[in-house]
Amino acid sequence: VALAGGTGSAKLLRGLAGLPIDLTAVVNVGDDAWFYGVYVCPDIDIATYTLAGVADVRRGWGIQGDTYNALAALSRLGRDTWFRLGDLDLATCLLRTELMGNGATLTQATDRIRKALGVKSPILPATDGPVETWLLTSKGELHLQEFWVREGGKPRVNKVTYRGARGSTPTPEVKSAIRAADRVVICPANPVTSIGPMLALPGFAKLLGASRARVVALSPMVGRAPVSGPAGKLMKSTRVRPDSLGVAELYSDFLDAILISDEDPALKGPIEALEIRCALTDTMMTDLVSEARLAKELLEL
Amino acid sequence: VALAGGTGSAKLLRGLAGLPIDLTAVVNVGDDAWFYGVYVCPDIDIATYTLAGVADVRRGWGIQGDTYNALAALSRLGRDTWFRLGDLDLATCLLRTELMGNGATLTQATDRIRKALGVKSPILPATDGPVETWLLTSKGELHLQEFWVREGGKPRVNKVTYRGARGSTPTPEVKSAIRAADRVVICPANPVTSIGPMLALPGFAKLLGASRARVVALSPMVGRAPVSGPAGKLMKSTRVRPDSLGVAELYSDFLDAILISDEDPALKGPIEALEIRCALTDTMMTDLVSEARLAKELLEL
Repeated sequence: VALAGGTGSAKLLRGLAGLPIDLTAVVNVGDDAWFYGVYVCPDIDIATYTLAGVADVRRGWGIQGDTYNALAALSRLGRDTWFRLGDLDLATCLLRTELMGNGATLTQATDRIRKALGVKSPILPATDGPVETWLLTSKGELHLQEFWVREGGKPRVNKVTYRGARGSTPTPEVKSAIRAADRVVICPANPVTSIGPMLALPGFAKLLGASRARVVALSPMVGRAPVSGPAGKLMKSTRVRPDSLGVAELYSDFLDAILISDEDPALKGPIEALEIRCALTDTMMTDLVSEARLAKELLEL
Repeated sequence: VALAGGTGSAKLLRGLAGLPIDLTAVVNVGDDAWFYGVYVCPDIDIATYTLAGVADVRRGWGIQGDTYNALAALSRLGRDTWFRLGDLDLATCLLRTELMGNGATLTQATDRIRKALGVKSPILPATDGPVETWLLTSKGELHLQEFWVREGGKPRVNKVTYRGARGSTPTPEVKSAIRAADRVVICPANPVTSIGPMLALPGFAKLLGASRARVVALSPMVGRAPVSGPAGKLMKSTRVRPDSLGVAELYSDFLDAILISDEDPALKGPIEALEIRCALTDTMMTDLVSEARLAKELLEL
């Protein structure tokens, strides 16, 4: 079972999917939001598209070769279109919204879509509850998408909240997947906005701690900066050290081992002092080969 | 005020919009339906697109040069896509659905869209109520779109019902427009499925009868066949004569005059026996010139 957020996670999922294992992805829903009347699930979709081989991996979101005709028309109709959504991507969101409007859970809609796209591994939303990551910033309260996409990640962040998390639960599918797992891999995702919303679900961290599976993470940090995205800034704002030691501390209740960047040898000692195994490697996923290598190293760790 | 249905109506609206008058279109909503999670209003949209100069008039629906990328993607996702909806057309439906989801009435959503597209004449849905035209056919109960688009208009029709009409009313905007009008023009629309759903609204026919405006119609029939669409078949199934006399009889409670095809001179006498003025002309709208000429002839009649 791999716990996944956005782009970096999707790359590792692709590496894991190439190994002779039964992979189940458990995916963050805190980024999900309504745009243009459809329900957009960026992390679920980038995982699905990447495993289906249609993702625009270089850009980190959406579908390769997508067009923006509907969005351009919405803009001409006077709708603010700061959230980019291609025509093909829109189709995914339309189908999901329609299915959920007809009573399907997010889990059921996600399953239908990944099967239609030929993805073999189950992709499970962490919860079917309405969990949203909101930030209290210097520009007021912002949904994560507003902060990151509309505001370019610029406002100062004072606080991160997972709206709806306390009243939600991991799905039965997620619970059984984690209970049955040999390994739980925490993908190199933003610990605050991708893994944080899962850990905020009542019972989720306990589920990991109680699992017979070894829990291993690939750190998203190199030095004091993430490979991509706003992880460093958001870790600081939640008073987590913005490096791999901070990641290990955050996960220390259930983490057995962590793979960190070989640019951070000084962190190995402090991490092992937390009784977490730590290995160093080149953690950059620049191609399919490095994705496969890191997937293998993680499982071996 | 012009009462309008689909393609033929849109052409006459364009003719009327070119005259030095204040035009308000009152448009059928009985064709409206949910597809792919968005609310599709074919008659409102073809009126709006035609007056905005972007309609695919030759085809009779949608926007010129539209693409079908989202629809193709929906099809690849396993969604049945018999109802064609282009990416640009979809944007209109997305905005309408989003606005209505946020509490706007169909009247408000329609007004915002026509203004954004630069259309000067108000376009008013006949009602904000949920009126849908359903047909009892040899293939069971079908929504008009299922009958006409999916089934190609082939099943035998035994009965036409306007679901939701009895519990709906003309909007306040429609009432004041008709009360203030000098002329009410009934466009060459399907009397059963385009004008019928308006007449089924409690008070609508009375509103026309009580209006100080002269009510004039352009017949959609030439001989026993409509210029386009399933009018003939549906008139027969509702026991209306499938010709211009049938149209005049159907509207006789409020109709002052009707312009019919010059191929039907034998119908002039029987129509005038109903105390309805009748004039003959070439009723085919093949270009902007004939649209303008017919608009003028109607107002003069």
